[in-house]
Amino acid sequence: MRHPVAKLLLFGATGDLAQRMLLPSLYGLHADGLLPDGLTITGTARSEHDDASYRSFAAEALDEFLPDDRKDKAAIASFLDRLGYQPLDATKIEGFADLATKIGDTSGGLAIFLSTAPTLFRPTIKGLESAGLAGTNVRIGLEKPLGNDLQSSCEINDAVAEVFPEDRTFRIDHYLGKETVQNILALRFGNALFEPIWNARGIEHVQITVSETVGLEGRAGFYDDTGALRDMVQNHMLQLLALIAMEPPSLYDGTAIRDEKVKVLRSLRTMTPGEVPHLTVTGQYNAGAVNGEIVRGYADELGHASGAETFVAVKAHIDNWRWQGVPFYLRTGKRLPTRQSEIFIQFKPVPHSMFAQRGGTLQANKLVIRLQPDEYVRLLVMAKEPGLDREGIHLREVPLDLSLDVQFAGTRRRIAYERLLLDLIEGDPALFVRRDEVEAQWQWIDAIRRGWAENAVKPKPYPAGSWGPSAAIALTERDGVTWHDD
Amino acid sequence: MRHPVAKLLLFGATGDLAQRMLLPSLYGLHADGLLPDGLTITGTARSEHDDASYRSFAAEALDEFLPDDRKDKAAIASFLDRLGYQPLDATKIEGFADLATKIGDTSGGLAIFLSTAPTLFRPTIKGLESAGLAGTNVRIGLEKPLGNDLQSSCEINDAVAEVFPEDRTFRIDHYLGKETVQNILALRFGNALFEPIWNARGIEHVQITVSETVGLEGRAGFYDDTGALRDMVQNHMLQLLALIAMEPPSLYDGTAIRDEKVKVLRSLRTMTPGEVPHLTVTGQYNAGAVNGEIVRGYADELGHASGAETFVAVKAHIDNWRWQGVPFYLRTGKRLPTRQSEIFIQFKPVPHSMFAQRGGTLQANKLVIRLQPDEYVRLLVMAKEPGLDREGIHLREVPLDLSLDVQFAGTRRRIAYERLLLDLIEGDPALFVRRDEVEAQWQWIDAIRRGWAENAVKPKPYPAGSWGPSAAIALTERDGVTWHDD
Repeated sequence: MRHPVAKLLLFGATGDLAQRMLLPSLYGLHADGLLPDGLTITGTARSEHDDASYRSFAAEALDEFLPDDRKDKAAIASFLDRLGYQPLDATKIEGFADLATKIGDTSGGLAIFLSTAPTLFRPTIKGLESAGLAGTNVRIGLEKPLGNDLQSSCEINDAVAEVFPEDRTFRIDHYLGKETVQNILALRFGNALFEPIWNARGIEHVQITVSETVGLEGRAGFYDDTGALRDMVQNHMLQLLALIAMEPPSLYDGTAIRDEKVKVLRSLRTMTPGEVPHLTVTGQYNAGAVNGEIVRGYADELGHASGAETFVAVKAHIDNWRWQGVPFYLRTGKRLPTRQSEIFIQFKPVPHSMFAQRGGTLQANKLVIRLQPDEYVRLLVMAKEPGLDREGIHLREVPLDLSLDVQFAGTRRRIAYERLLLDLIEGDPALFVRRDEVEAQWQWIDAIRRGWAENAVKPKPYPAGSWGPSAAIALTERDGVTWHDD
Repeated sequence: MRHPVAKLLLFGATGDLAQRMLLPSLYGLHADGLLPDGLTITGTARSEHDDASYRSFAAEALDEFLPDDRKDKAAIASFLDRLGYQPLDATKIEGFADLATKIGDTSGGLAIFLSTAPTLFRPTIKGLESAGLAGTNVRIGLEKPLGNDLQSSCEINDAVAEVFPEDRTFRIDHYLGKETVQNILALRFGNALFEPIWNARGIEHVQITVSETVGLEGRAGFYDDTGALRDMVQNHMLQLLALIAMEPPSLYDGTAIRDEKVKVLRSLRTMTPGEVPHLTVTGQYNAGAVNGEIVRGYADELGHASGAETFVAVKAHIDNWRWQGVPFYLRTGKRLPTRQSEIFIQFKPVPHSMFAQRGGTLQANKLVIRLQPDEYVRLLVMAKEPGLDREGIHLREVPLDLSLDVQFAGTRRRIAYERLLLDLIEGDPALFVRRDEVEAQWQWIDAIRRGWAENAVKPKPYPAGSWGPSAAIALTERDGVTWHDD
């Protein structure tokens, strides 16, 4: 059951995320008639704005970040009419009363989108409570970072839980808003084809790659404190792993799906400190060239030497019946050669090849689920090349492609946040992350970080524009596995 | 091991098959440098020709039936140089001595391609033997019809076997020369993906359709004596069924593959006469319209009333572990709406849909192996439609296509006979039909014909341009199955 709210409150309303993602997403929903009639959107942040100047601010953001063919003058005007603004210093509890006044009656329901610095979490939650903005009609969406280890995450979650119970807390992982990620569910549980081989008997290994070509991009302080493991692996990549590895949920709802995901996350084999140096590789980029342009090294961009990893590769195992002995190789990094998010599933070879004595060579089946920059699902199968097979049988790997862009041409590719904001407004928790998932993720991540600390692991340098330090290649090649660089 | 012969002897050298298929195929092999150097091709038939006039005859056939872009003057000239001709009345044993003289020394090996009327089989074999054209260096390719029931087939096979042992007898089923048919082996046994669901647990039913739009096409006498069941089902369609249903052969060779095929053919559930009217449907076309043209009915074309079936649909079962309870629906006919040969595999649905309570409807996976007119393999899977799923989750069936024409663009699509003639010349029996297969096919077919006779089954009329009599629709719909008409 969906219960749309009548009002939306946006923290961080003047920030980068709001300009690039949230305002364009809300406009997209508005333009398609998907926002509840009369829904008002109140922005808040430190900056001084009144309604009129915030509307101008929002209009500029839309002008910059909307594709031209989505700019509809009338729709933009009616969208801006929904917007209001109230300045707020979240460290001072007094301001919240004015915020509540600005928002007014919340009996029709209020959804809050909170993205803020970790230090402001507790005062913000307290402020909302004190101003009466945390009643049973109110749900809250939380944007990362939600802590930087299990302990700080628990502190934040405890602070939130004092005011908002779990069923009104919507933790955002924007990867779950991506179409291709949701298609993992359709692919796995809407088709009978894959399930019999979707396990240790059928799958040799799984790779998850999230590579970026960009460097620091102006959030130097946060990133340097965080590093690739916590910025990417702890949340997005472990969520992808959970979707790939989970048992079939009985229902498509927040309880059933998240029950299955958390079981996977809790089954991740915790690394001992002694294992960590063998199962993980960290790196930090030096100067190099990406996409034909010379770029500086990380320390140079940052302005000082740093121990933060801008690259991490991990060999993970899931200790349950389905996945025993199947490695999950994860890697992510900045200043890599291409921007590419994908899941690569290497199936086992056929048990015996009838073609071998005729010179036919087989490659085992593969499935590529590409999230970025394009979105597709590609199944690689063996077929016979047309021909008379005089010098042996020629078999070739050919792709069976499900291109979302092609198959569903004409449907607009939405921003992941459109889906998540609408689910927040309507109260559907299925694509949000539950507290027990976050904690299971941190538990596994913290063990890796302990191993780094105990073994004084330092990131290995790698040239910008390469696929990370050579130790990352070695990590898989020792197992006879090659990273799928496409 | 391949043992190419030095000479080829072509019976029926002035017939329709020779003009349309055999000469163009041999030319294709010649032009690609695939025929053994110095291979001579001797044609024989009743018609009076000498070498020169047969070369003119062949040149005309090539001119008519080769695609323009394959006509290479120099290649045609050098191909014609290979040709010789010897007239022969096969009913008279004397002529074979002259034929042997014409062919000359056979110590380098001789391959014979024999396509002849059933009544001429025995005298031809005897004539070949008497003239010394049946030594251990000689192998014989036999084109259908090889009898019209088990008994007559055994008689022909016995007559051949008196002179040519089984390992030098190559029974041609030109469907086995088709690329897509050979790709069934690559698909099934070169990929680990399909085997776990390629059985009664994973497959709901299989359909094999071979539909023609043409009517009698000038072979009225033969067809009217034969009917659709024996013209199409007994050979081509049962071979397709065997390739789909067989266990994995251990090797790609004539023994291993045919051992597995014959096991399937022997496992076909023999129908009792009482069952036949419930498991088969026969039809004969009336006047109607095909491809927008008015066409006459079968009896009208033939010139008299006839009891021959121009359409047959059969529900078959294979009694072994893999296929218990899985119906194989076969149908073939003339004057159907489209020309379409395909194998359609309907997989079972997922055991439980997590999407149902959100309005998502699933269709079970399907695999289409299309042989004609185009060649492709298409896997139908469910994917989520991009969108925000406000009124439930939208799932859609999307095709994953392996188009041989597209994937292997630039490779010429060969005539099926090119492959089979070359295999005959080189002595590779893997794609020819063994005697035990033919006999198992006839055994099953004869039981159906006994049922028709005992129950005095008469073909039901159907309008030309329709998918056969409505009883053929009922045959599957009673089981909740719809024919795949695409």
